[in-house]
Amino acid sequence: MTSPARVPAKAGAQDPAPSRAYRRLSVEERRTQLLDAALTLFAHRAPDDVSLDDVAEAAGVSRPLVYRYFPGGKQQLYETALRSAADELEICFAEPQSGPPTERLARVLDRYLDFVDEHDAGFSALLRGGSVAETSRATAIVDGIRREAADQILVHLGAERPGPRLAMLVRTWIAAVEAASLIWLDEGKQPPAEQLRDWLVDHLVALLTATATTDPETARAVRGLLALEHRDGPVGRLARGVLPVVSEGTHLL
Amino acid sequence: MTSPARVPAKAGAQDPAPSRAYRRLSVEERRTQLLDAALTLFAHRAPDDVSLDDVAEAAGVSRPLVYRYFPGGKQQLYETALRSAADELEICFAEPQSGPPTERLARVLDRYLDFVDEHDAGFSALLRGGSVAETSRATAIVDGIRREAADQILVHLGAERPGPRLAMLVRTWIAAVEAASLIWLDEGKQPPAEQLRDWLVDHLVALLTATATTDPETARAVRGLLALEHRDGPVGRLARGVLPVVSEGTHLL
Repeated sequence: MTSPARVPAKAGAQDPAPSRAYRRLSVEERRTQLLDAALTLFAHRAPDDVSLDDVAEAAGVSRPLVYRYFPGGKQQLYETALRSAADELEICFAEPQSGPPTERLARVLDRYLDFVDEHDAGFSALLRGGSVAETSRATAIVDGIRREAADQILVHLGAERPGPRLAMLVRTWIAAVEAASLIWLDEGKQPPAEQLRDWLVDHLVALLTATATTDPETARAVRGLLALEHRDGPVGRLARGVLPVVSEGTHLL
Repeated sequence: MTSPARVPAKAGAQDPAPSRAYRRLSVEERRTQLLDAALTLFAHRAPDDVSLDDVAEAAGVSRPLVYRYFPGGKQQLYETALRSAADELEICFAEPQSGPPTERLARVLDRYLDFVDEHDAGFSALLRGGSVAETSRATAIVDGIRREAADQILVHLGAERPGPRLAMLVRTWIAAVEAASLIWLDEGKQPPAEQLRDWLVDHLVALLTATATTDPETARAVRGLLALEHRDGPVGRLARGVLPVVSEGTHLL
């Protein structure tokens, strides 16, 4: 891969691609431009398959310029891009505490699945591991995202300081969401995102309900949630859908 | 770390630790001995913190001897130890297809949690990633274990060639089990293994039931399972436990 021909600092009107030119950007603008280029590349290929030359070419700058901003080379660029993606993802998790909780969760999952859709191969490579770009710092960033996701869910469950069972439930469900996202990417993004989102909501509701049978704290949280749900929402649909399934098991009641 | 003093090939009666001596072992015995030593070390420390000197010392042999059996060094030893642990784990998954399915699952989970308990830090380091010992080969071995686990569950669900929804359900639940195992190790193996096992069984039953409301194949599998369950088994307990929880939500029915 070669860098594109350099364009003078003040590109003429006939310049067809001024964004790829050596425009005078502020340090912050240049940094953002390089990060955006890196994020786009990391989204489409595994980190191991992206070179600094690729990043320089995508941003329309020279390799030494990339090094001036990221003296730690690809590893530093990757971790900074990851940090930036993590910030973006954590913004997805924020949701006002009003309305039926399953509707709040559905909105968060919609934004999360949009993110997965957009970051695609990079998301997959990051969570799958086995990459040379994977370091304890990268792992710490990903763990931070998981913690933030868990904290947000616990806020909506009214359990900011959860007991061990409820904490394990939430972290376990988050792992299930990650796994489902990876499978979804593998399967060419099938089923459609809305169906996956509905299934993930059902999954959490089912897990909360099952856990409520043995854990008093989860039972309290479920009571609080049920009171806020609508008949035509996911919990109503799920409850009515479960009845015919369970009716096959009357010998168990 | 230094290697222990070499002991003559035929250790005398006063030798207090004949197993650490240079006994004449067959090639296969020596290989097994080195692997066992490596597995024990990898179980207690992250792969990055285990050196070939440590393995040599634990097996009571010289470093060159370890290299003679594993010319690829630590990476080869690690992958071979991992392959051996994978075989052990896959044996845990085998369970006859008779009796209530939740009892079969509980027995498999008991063996699996024993394995997690025994391999502890090594299990955790492997699944957490971010280790220099992690390679695409190591990742492929772990993925093979996941596939084997999923295949076994599908056999018991009577769905060896599952549709996409049921396949995703099973793989997602396996990811949840892995996450729960890691949290369990982090939390000093609390709750007791039997409680964790019961919760994981409930989790799968809840997930199957919720998915049965929208996926006909899962609904068929659940009907088949329910018919084999006993009133005093986990499904009966769960079904009776859910009734009071759901009774708070009659406005949803």
